[in-house]
Amino acid sequence: MSSLRHLLAAIREPTLLLDTERVHRNIERMALRARLAGVRLRPHFKTHQSVAVGAWFREAGVEAITVSSLRMAADFAAAGWRDVTVAFPLNPRTMGQVNALASRIRLGVLVDAEAQVAALPAGLAPPLRVWLKIDVGFGRAGLPWDRPERVLELARTVAACPRSELAGLLTHAGHAYQAESPAEVLRVHDESLARLRALRDAMAGAGLPPPAISVGDTPTCSLAETFPGADEIRPGNFVFYDLMQARLGVCREEDIALALACPVVGLYPERGEAVVHGGAVHLGKESLPGADGEPIFGYLASLEEGSFGRVDHEAPLVGLSQEHGILRLPAERLLSLTLGQTVCILPVHACLAAEQHAGYLTLDGRVLPRLERRLPEAPRHDSRREERG
Amino acid sequence: MSSLRHLLAAIREPTLLLDTERVHRNIERMALRARLAGVRLRPHFKTHQSVAVGAWFREAGVEAITVSSLRMAADFAAAGWRDVTVAFPLNPRTMGQVNALASRIRLGVLVDAEAQVAALPAGLAPPLRVWLKIDVGFGRAGLPWDRPERVLELARTVAACPRSELAGLLTHAGHAYQAESPAEVLRVHDESLARLRALRDAMAGAGLPPPAISVGDTPTCSLAETFPGADEIRPGNFVFYDLMQARLGVCREEDIALALACPVVGLYPERGEAVVHGGAVHLGKESLPGADGEPIFGYLASLEEGSFGRVDHEAPLVGLSQEHGILRLPAERLLSLTLGQTVCILPVHACLAAEQHAGYLTLDGRVLPRLERRLPEAPRHDSRREERG
Repeated sequence: MSSLRHLLAAIREPTLLLDTERVHRNIERMALRARLAGVRLRPHFKTHQSVAVGAWFREAGVEAITVSSLRMAADFAAAGWRDVTVAFPLNPRTMGQVNALASRIRLGVLVDAEAQVAALPAGLAPPLRVWLKIDVGFGRAGLPWDRPERVLELARTVAACPRSELAGLLTHAGHAYQAESPAEVLRVHDESLARLRALRDAMAGAGLPPPAISVGDTPTCSLAETFPGADEIRPGNFVFYDLMQARLGVCREEDIALALACPVVGLYPERGEAVVHGGAVHLGKESLPGADGEPIFGYLASLEEGSFGRVDHEAPLVGLSQEHGILRLPAERLLSLTLGQTVCILPVHACLAAEQHAGYLTLDGRVLPRLERRLPEAPRHDSRREERG
Repeated sequence: MSSLRHLLAAIREPTLLLDTERVHRNIERMALRARLAGVRLRPHFKTHQSVAVGAWFREAGVEAITVSSLRMAADFAAAGWRDVTVAFPLNPRTMGQVNALASRIRLGVLVDAEAQVAALPAGLAPPLRVWLKIDVGFGRAGLPWDRPERVLELARTVAACPRSELAGLLTHAGHAYQAESPAEVLRVHDESLARLRALRDAMAGAGLPPPAISVGDTPTCSLAETFPGADEIRPGNFVFYDLMQARLGVCREEDIALALACPVVGLYPERGEAVVHGGAVHLGKESLPGADGEPIFGYLASLEEGSFGRVDHEAPLVGLSQEHGILRLPAERLLSLTLGQTVCILPVHACLAAEQHAGYLTLDGRVLPRLERRLPEAPRHDSRREERG
């Protein structure tokens, strides 16, 4: 504990803290779960977006990864990853980037429409690995699970296209995040896999090669012990976990590996609140319903055993503007705070909180950069150069 | 229009578009309003965080600015700004940075507690300009407006401190953003100023030097024509405006200068929806209530006269995950979209949307960087160096 207090004493602005022991434990636990269930772990790297954290996955035996953009795929390819699925619908206008990447790594892409297959670049060797994106009930992207004739039609198109290789059926059961209980998460899990197996059987029945099945979201992958029919799982958030997952019963509070260190900049005992330097630009503006149904943007963490400890449910972040967070807490707790002191806030949604930062500070004082954001590209037809200054 | 269509045709990933003509118009209109009202315009630069946009303010006669962190103050000081107020509660642990900055520029800071004044560094020349932060009803930071005895006490402390100079009373009436109508915004405006004038009179009555009054938020500064008693105004969002301000009646739709260019990556006519590449990591997760009360994260913009045009109220962004946005739109509009096409989405909250990006692409094809994000600082007591990789 003394080292964390030492670290906090040196922090003067909102800083993303990473408990690397918890990260390692979360990685190892998911790798073990995948091994026991006989599925490949292809973790989603959009959550951490860190080459250093990626290397810890490699140490745990992971060789294939998932990302959410071609840009992220290119960055992790540059860091040595050779098997990357871009789990985001293929934009037919990005074939130049797809072609460049597919010549260097084993690249997987997602389609749910003929137009995406038609746009595939000629001359790819080896052919692009194309996954059919299936909507198993989330209602975002993908072919609806209950329209097998459309799945078969697109599968035939992909299988017949010399520029592509049919990888299989892929889904993200994002509605598992909206479940109310672990039992409901597992119901979504069972239902999703049943729907995918039915489609797989329909494809086999139609004489198509049996497709692989890829599923993935942190709630189902953290709770389910078996993945009947699935070949690979693609969870991402579990590397850090967060309040949303703890609320859902998907992780324990002591699994949460990410916290925002926030300086206390205002004390208002008359209204039972403190203001911290830590706002939407540091946490992302995701909320959970609090005890009275009002939105909660984070909770204060206790400090224990060298890391941030339990969730202090009596100290919710009840307001969040651009740079300020409003912490409501009992009088005696409020009186123990001092101006300038740095406290730890646990995020509601770790992926969005991490996205707000250039990098992480580990509890032992190392800085781990995230992938760099890039400036927009100026359109090629225009000869003006980037305006500096 | 043809040039915008040309630009959109070249865009392959979510890109923040800036209509610089509208930015100039918004700046000029606010500068004129301040001149006519006889108050100094000290615009808040946290919205744009761009040295280039800052230069346009200078062309409009602006010489003093507001920022929300010492880091931003240092960055704009490096770009030549010599009069900067950090409109965020002073963290007593940042006196090293304060001292370094105050030796180079005319720096203003905010306090609402004795502990902040006590922490002011010795040997500042000239003394630091210290504003008393007043809470006029928003309930975030500041001394409550209805506790004049506390304001007087802190004013005396600041006035008596040889390291500080009492600048005046400063507030941000953030509750104006929650108003339901322009009339309610103006009511907040009148009330805030009346409360500040009463405090100023109390200070004069107590023999203290008459304080300056600084107010600022985009709703009141956009609607009010007079600012009785105020010396300066500090609006920020108006440089871009957004859907929230348009909904409030604070700007016209055609004043919104920022849009997110989003590739269409999924078409789902069976459910009346399209999926765009544009999620919480590109727009920030701020919402407005839609027609049925459900949260709306943006609206499609029509394309007109060389820029993004009217808000298409029939095409709301009804869902927002990390990278995906779900656009609901009428059948005929949906049928006119093609996969890979780039559309323009107007943001709910321009400040948070802009914060998600490294820079802007102007409609005439120039790239304007925002201030760079920085890695966390490793604590000084630890000799380990930043871990690369």
